[in-house]
Amino acid sequence: MREIVKLVEEIDREGMQSILLSFPQQLRLPPISPDIENLPRPRQMVVVGVGGSAIGGDIFRTYMARLSPCPVHVIRGYCLPLWVDPQTLVVAVSCSGRTQETLAMFQEARKRKTPIVAVTRGGVLEKAAMEAKIPVAKLQGTSPPRTTLGNTLSILIALAQSLDLIPQEDPLEEAKTLLSDMAREFHPSRKGGRAFEMAEKLKGSIPLIYAGGPSLEAVATRWKGQFNENSKVPAFTNTFPELGHNEIVGWEGDMNPFHVVLLRDKEETDLQSKTISAT
Amino acid sequence: MREIVKLVEEIDREGMQSILLSFPQQLRLPPISPDIENLPRPRQMVVVGVGGSAIGGDIFRTYMARLSPCPVHVIRGYCLPLWVDPQTLVVAVSCSGRTQETLAMFQEARKRKTPIVAVTRGGVLEKAAMEAKIPVAKLQGTSPPRTTLGNTLSILIALAQSLDLIPQEDPLEEAKTLLSDMAREFHPSRKGGRAFEMAEKLKGSIPLIYAGGPSLEAVATRWKGQFNENSKVPAFTNTFPELGHNEIVGWEGDMNPFHVVLLRDKEETDLQSKTISAT
Repeated sequence: MREIVKLVEEIDREGMQSILLSFPQQLRLPPISPDIENLPRPRQMVVVGVGGSAIGGDIFRTYMARLSPCPVHVIRGYCLPLWVDPQTLVVAVSCSGRTQETLAMFQEARKRKTPIVAVTRGGVLEKAAMEAKIPVAKLQGTSPPRTTLGNTLSILIALAQSLDLIPQEDPLEEAKTLLSDMAREFHPSRKGGRAFEMAEKLKGSIPLIYAGGPSLEAVATRWKGQFNENSKVPAFTNTFPELGHNEIVGWEGDMNPFHVVLLRDKEETDLQSKTISAT
Repeated sequence: MREIVKLVEEIDREGMQSILLSFPQQLRLPPISPDIENLPRPRQMVVVGVGGSAIGGDIFRTYMARLSPCPVHVIRGYCLPLWVDPQTLVVAVSCSGRTQETLAMFQEARKRKTPIVAVTRGGVLEKAAMEAKIPVAKLQGTSPPRTTLGNTLSILIALAQSLDLIPQEDPLEEAKTLLSDMAREFHPSRKGGRAFEMAEKLKGSIPLIYAGGPSLEAVATRWKGQFNENSKVPAFTNTFPELGHNEIVGWEGDMNPFHVVLLRDKEETDLQSKTISAT
């Protein structure tokens, strides 16, 4: 046990372990400023950003798809699709406020006269937004962008509530309790625990994170990003039912050097469960 | 030279080579039936399907994003997002007409009273659509779903034109000429040609298809699917700028057993070209 704790201390120079363990504390609906509350109710929402700044948008999009009549899309790009119009709310997320792709799309949104909200810690994005009287929701902390997932998600949910796009109840309280329990259960010092067991299995192989359905696609993307950025290893994702129609054929040969992690949804449809079992 | 031609004959038992070489012939705007022309102009479009039936939707979505005020989304899932409403046109694409996920979403769309078009060769989907007086656009041929990409794309573009969502000019004529030239240039019997050279390089490795930007994401997905289904090998994709924010960190170690194929867009922005070169 003591060796693992020591090993983590040695390897984890960014202090990622304690940031991850405190993740549930980020889940808290922030107060919404009056300039955000006064925005018009949009016909659709577009979250623009990349990497750790975009993943909160992916989880938000998945959450909204089950609850809201307002479509949410995440665009990790250089320019906006032509359909982004003044009835679209553009949320520009850049943790540093310096992400060039996000700034380019922010400026494009301004030209198209769409309503905009900037989500950032500061930088050029905050400055440009303030000058243009565009509402800014501030991200907290100083650690890498991927560590602000809970904060970004909380801001996006508060924003959707204030625009009346989803019910007013707070979904984050339950998530916070659940995740706090899991943080204890998965603590790396718990030898024989599930996290330890999974790490042992994945050691030396390339993780393939398979989402049981589109509702878990964003979660698989997060796993991939964490493997890439925290563990510095390649990792790939795919999602049912799509993966059963092509990727699976590619495994006719040898499965080395890969190891599959399958994510399941408690609310799977019967067809979904059947397909996953058959695969 | 002769050995390659013989080898292709031996390996290619589905006759995929001649199907691929005749791909440009599929690019032809089909006549649109009066029941499709009479559909209301939608606020957004959703193409539902999986695998080879969905890839035409991806290319269509990319094409529309540059030209049309109507958002197009592709859903490879089990159920429809809540925002799919009567102002959304649902296009259910199932080549066989028996894809269970697509049928489930087709039925869900019927319950939500959205306008629907079915794109299929027949099966349950055609039967159910005809019984419900839902317009059917017929796919041609008998070869695997992935070989109908050109046909599906042509139908979708004709549909968008008839609904006045894009300009009336025919983009397929230019594509047809270009692809016919390329089919000659890339013919596998051309030893020393680009296709041969690329095959030699990729032999024994796992292809990673990197799209230079979101405009090429669908093309990368197509490459992946063709590697999986035609060559029976694993393959993965990712897209700039996103891949530079996480996946690239995973390559800090050894790049074996992968080989990167980078797809570039002639219409890249300066920022895009700079990012790709720097990576």
